[in-house]
Amino acid sequence: MAKVTVQERIQSENERVAAANRAAFAKARVLVLNLVSSPGSGKTTLLEGTLDRLPAAGIRSLVIEGDVSTDRDLERVRARGGEGVQINTGGGCHLSAQMVADALGRLDLRAADVVFIENVGNLICPSTYDLGEDAKVVLLSTAEGDDKPMKYPAVFHESSLAVLNKIDLLPHLPYDIAKVEREIAVLNPRCEVLRVSALKGDGMDLWLSWIAARLAAKRSK
Amino acid sequence: MAKVTVQERIQSENERVAAANRAAFAKARVLVLNLVSSPGSGKTTLLEGTLDRLPAAGIRSLVIEGDVSTDRDLERVRARGGEGVQINTGGGCHLSAQMVADALGRLDLRAADVVFIENVGNLICPSTYDLGEDAKVVLLSTAEGDDKPMKYPAVFHESSLAVLNKIDLLPHLPYDIAKVEREIAVLNPRCEVLRVSALKGDGMDLWLSWIAARLAAKRSK
Repeated sequence: MAKVTVQERIQSENERVAAANRAAFAKARVLVLNLVSSPGSGKTTLLEGTLDRLPAAGIRSLVIEGDVSTDRDLERVRARGGEGVQINTGGGCHLSAQMVADALGRLDLRAADVVFIENVGNLICPSTYDLGEDAKVVLLSTAEGDDKPMKYPAVFHESSLAVLNKIDLLPHLPYDIAKVEREIAVLNPRCEVLRVSALKGDGMDLWLSWIAARLAAKRSK
Repeated sequence: MAKVTVQERIQSENERVAAANRAAFAKARVLVLNLVSSPGSGKTTLLEGTLDRLPAAGIRSLVIEGDVSTDRDLERVRARGGEGVQINTGGGCHLSAQMVADALGRLDLRAADVVFIENVGNLICPSTYDLGEDAKVVLLSTAEGDDKPMKYPAVFHESSLAVLNKIDLLPHLPYDIAKVEREIAVLNPRCEVLRVSALKGDGMDLWLSWIAARLAAKRSK
């Protein structure tokens, strides 16, 4: 069927470019994290809190911002002293390896230890597009409800870490966080889980430690 | 380019089937609402509260549930006495007119005044797929942040109503609801806006009135 053939061709081309991105990241010895979530789960707020804390850890960073429209998220990154580039997909529901490759032409990877790629707000489409990252990090907001992992399984299969964000709202929500953690463990036992409030700061030390450990592991290879 | 041609062919075929759905809905004199939002904005909770209230208004309903995976949402609908069918898209990020056409074979439209179609949790993909509905209703959860309309403009262009859900969380969030309403008005002046807490019940009377008015308008034609 034509649709499958075109889809396969798109995926195959994406994998080729992702491999080239991965080689460029390896050469520059940068850790690359692909942040994926629904709209409004707190990816940009997590980045803001991360940018506030990375300098004290001696870690330099760059940000690639992906959005359907606007450069609001890159403005927020810059307001925290971060540097990066904005990609607008038009109507596209995910970043592609080629979009990241194009962005790399506008970034000096030698100025970074970690590159954060904030994907388009979407819990489905980004899961099947490799960008050349070292790890996918999926965010879930507690306000999204505790039934999401099994309803959107693909991204959890692909992620190395799940950040359960907005735990400051737990007193105001019907939400069983242990159930969410159990479902993630069933879908992907290798996916670590952190409980975080990017807005209030809870758990941010664990997130920073996770980044530092992944960076050290990559550079020790 | 092959990709565009295939995409155009998919859209054209979708429009043909959507028109057939619309004719079937018109013949049955049912109002059809296509509910669209990010994962976890509260579409199913809104339906639960709606199913609790519709009988008192003398309005009969059916539900078509769209999800990537699981039939959890249909189970919730049935627990409230609702009837309907579940569509699982596999990895697909939106319902198509054909999926709805297939579902119609399992529904008796004569038993309904209103059909609710709960689309896949996704703020991007469903906006460009007509299912044959009378109106798209977009939900936004306050917990998603007040910057969403401009970042995801397409669905607001297409929607007749925006439900700002989870207003019970407003005391606990940095959220400017008037800003959200202004942005929606800029994107689509004809899009009405309701402030709702589907969980707590606030604004549900306005939502029920909106449904009843749309139903009466359709039947007066």
